[in-house]
Amino acid sequence: MSGMSDRTPLSAGFPTPEPTRRLLIRGCDVLRVPAEGECEVLRARDIVVADGVIEAVSPTGSATETEADVIDGRGLLAVPGLVNAHTHSPMVLMRGAAEDVTVEGWFNDRVWPMESNLTPDDVHAGALLACAEMIRSGVTAFADHYFFPERIADAVAETGLRADIAPTYFSSRGQKALEETVAFAEARHGDADGRITVSLGPHAPYTVDDKDLRALSDHARRLGLRLHIHAAEHLEQTESSLQRRGITPIRVLHETGVLDAGALIAHGCGIVEQDLPLLAEHAATTAVACCPKVYLKHALSPLTPVRDLLDTGVGVAVGTDGAAGHNTLDVWEALRLVALTQKQAVRDATWMTVSDTLRLATRGGARALGLQDRIGALEPGMRADIVLTDLTGTHCRPLHDARAALVYSARASDVRTVVVDGRVLMRDGRLLTVDESALLVDVDARVARILDTSHGRAVQHYDP
Amino acid sequence: MSGMSDRTPLSAGFPTPEPTRRLLIRGCDVLRVPAEGECEVLRARDIVVADGVIEAVSPTGSATETEADVIDGRGLLAVPGLVNAHTHSPMVLMRGAAEDVTVEGWFNDRVWPMESNLTPDDVHAGALLACAEMIRSGVTAFADHYFFPERIADAVAETGLRADIAPTYFSSRGQKALEETVAFAEARHGDADGRITVSLGPHAPYTVDDKDLRALSDHARRLGLRLHIHAAEHLEQTESSLQRRGITPIRVLHETGVLDAGALIAHGCGIVEQDLPLLAEHAATTAVACCPKVYLKHALSPLTPVRDLLDTGVGVAVGTDGAAGHNTLDVWEALRLVALTQKQAVRDATWMTVSDTLRLATRGGARALGLQDRIGALEPGMRADIVLTDLTGTHCRPLHDARAALVYSARASDVRTVVVDGRVLMRDGRLLTVDESALLVDVDARVARILDTSHGRAVQHYDP
Repeated sequence: MSGMSDRTPLSAGFPTPEPTRRLLIRGCDVLRVPAEGECEVLRARDIVVADGVIEAVSPTGSATETEADVIDGRGLLAVPGLVNAHTHSPMVLMRGAAEDVTVEGWFNDRVWPMESNLTPDDVHAGALLACAEMIRSGVTAFADHYFFPERIADAVAETGLRADIAPTYFSSRGQKALEETVAFAEARHGDADGRITVSLGPHAPYTVDDKDLRALSDHARRLGLRLHIHAAEHLEQTESSLQRRGITPIRVLHETGVLDAGALIAHGCGIVEQDLPLLAEHAATTAVACCPKVYLKHALSPLTPVRDLLDTGVGVAVGTDGAAGHNTLDVWEALRLVALTQKQAVRDATWMTVSDTLRLATRGGARALGLQDRIGALEPGMRADIVLTDLTGTHCRPLHDARAALVYSARASDVRTVVVDGRVLMRDGRLLTVDESALLVDVDARVARILDTSHGRAVQHYDP
Repeated sequence: MSGMSDRTPLSAGFPTPEPTRRLLIRGCDVLRVPAEGECEVLRARDIVVADGVIEAVSPTGSATETEADVIDGRGLLAVPGLVNAHTHSPMVLMRGAAEDVTVEGWFNDRVWPMESNLTPDDVHAGALLACAEMIRSGVTAFADHYFFPERIADAVAETGLRADIAPTYFSSRGQKALEETVAFAEARHGDADGRITVSLGPHAPYTVDDKDLRALSDHARRLGLRLHIHAAEHLEQTESSLQRRGITPIRVLHETGVLDAGALIAHGCGIVEQDLPLLAEHAATTAVACCPKVYLKHALSPLTPVRDLLDTGVGVAVGTDGAAGHNTLDVWEALRLVALTQKQAVRDATWMTVSDTLRLATRGGARALGLQDRIGALEPGMRADIVLTDLTGTHCRPLHDARAALVYSARASDVRTVVVDGRVLMRDGRLLTVDESALLVDVDARVARILDTSHGRAVQHYDP
């Protein structure tokens, strides 16, 4: 990766609207996602937002607002903002550039060589593009894991999204790099009115040694932060870990204090039975992000053992992973695939119901980011992360059950209006915080340089 | 099913545009889908259509047209119209009304009781809605299998789509019903300027006895038609057939002359090794439609053995099945799931490539409908079934590879303009042959009656 900074912030100069103090969404239906049991659709509600917080969700007409920004929600369904619980947002720059290859080829021949080309400004542009795509898709919060995290934080601050950002760390980077990730956490955790949180980001047990895992766990406990880490990504990694050192990747996390500090684990397709008691010990502070599109695309089997994890009390959330594998940052697509693949995985069509799937993508994601007290449901006291969806399209009609339509029929393009922390980021399909056309021109100009891997460099070699 | 006909054609009175004799799509990129090998994107082409046939695909500017309808294709990618190789179009009426249930519950408690409520007019309205959704999604041809086929044919004729329609037959319906399906074929095959073709439609080997299968095979051979049938839908059906009568469902098709007549087989997840030589004997006239979303949703495993089928020379195509299971008629979603699930099924991420997947959904579908000489590719001499897609959206950018974007990033909502048989059915997002808002009002008024299963009737009992 080039250390060169050609910093020319893209969204600078673009007018940033002031946060609205009071917001009224009038007459929408509201998806209620309870902590347990069936989701339900509340008809014809007004949602009142004050200073970024949901103040009331009440039958329409009961709210009297004279100074609020009013959004006409009639005919729309308000759902809690979706949470993308694991991604590498700037990898949208490599979307579609690594198809039909093995996992090893994906890392060693394509992605890790391309990533060695990335400048801080590339990362900023990529993160902005990712934020634009996620806002358009109704994703209001994401857990990121990448290089140049300060430039991702800038993009999040500028676009108005919510993110938990983990600075990616490999032991091959050395001690100074480790300290820099901790310094980033100290500097930016809680930034942008609390929309930005930071987790520490050891890449994986196969790229970070035990000493560094312990050091980062200690830092996390000291700072009151969580860790976000890839582990047991597939069964072969678990088998390789058992062969090399006699313990599973999850036991590595247990022994190095990662689980004790609180961890968001990406993938976990290789979590095996002996791992479940270890995870259960720390269930309340552990979550696993399931990103099925990339597992299928990389021909992996088995998938994340979601039923076993939920049975132990561990949190489960929905992620896309980076767009170099997933191609989109579309959490509708991801949650649909969680429902479909998990039904098949346990051979039970009555499981991973529509309500449970919607819960994973909202409350489950909130918990995975450590934000379960702030987001994940449209209830008084929660931060106002609200997505207005239009289910009147031909592909959703007749609308027997809006919940089923959200899981099995709706598309990201059905999202009309997006509010994060009480601020409107997209209104009736128009992005308000990103200059999309200028951004796309800027991104296109970066592509040829990023794709050039003739230099033979790579950020790391994959050999788990 | 009620025999009552409350025929009030919905699209009657709605102005039907005259087919354009000459059409010029200027300056678009064109996806070339060869019979073998990599697809490629031809830059900046003019497509000239005369009397429904593609006359030329040439570098832009070379076509001089003075009297043609001209579509500005600049910035758009023309792809061959997608083919939905297996559906039950009127089941859009039951979209989302049968979630999180077993296969048995789906048939016996939900779908077959609801279907007993359907009137011919319901079927017409449902087929119109399905056609509207498919046009919007860039699906230009579909293989249907349902009751009241004449009303589906009417909807196809009215909306301008292309369809192969199989009238569903159960032996429980009796000899007169069998003769009626043959009479329908004789009356409507080749209708609507050849856009409507008919296949005979025995439902499945477990609902149609061998005598009727033989009779329908004989009729098919006599009339030069194909058969469209569900068979070996999942492994349990194959096992049940072996247990009950000692032979697999595919051998039943072989012994009753169905394969000899030429068959489109829906699903085939239960096709086993001993079936492959039987299929190979008739490979040139046999195709299997793979509809993975419903297999996952119904928790089936294994899936259609696509690699084995292609190795025997059998055609493979992409379908959605009915929307009571698939929820949409979106072939983009279906083809993506074919790529993802087939990579996983054979544990080979380098297989079912982007090019192969696009070929299955276009040329593969054309062959499944017996239309390989008419549709499936944008080449001179082929009927003009053309879809203009817009890959400039944030979720497709940067556009490293348009082919990968089509398979892994694009959405049905990226379809802008749809041409079937040289006639423009949707222009820049506006449907030209369906009065969508009137149709949706009509459909909504039918819902309560269709969902009422308190009568205890069903069209059939599921016990394969």
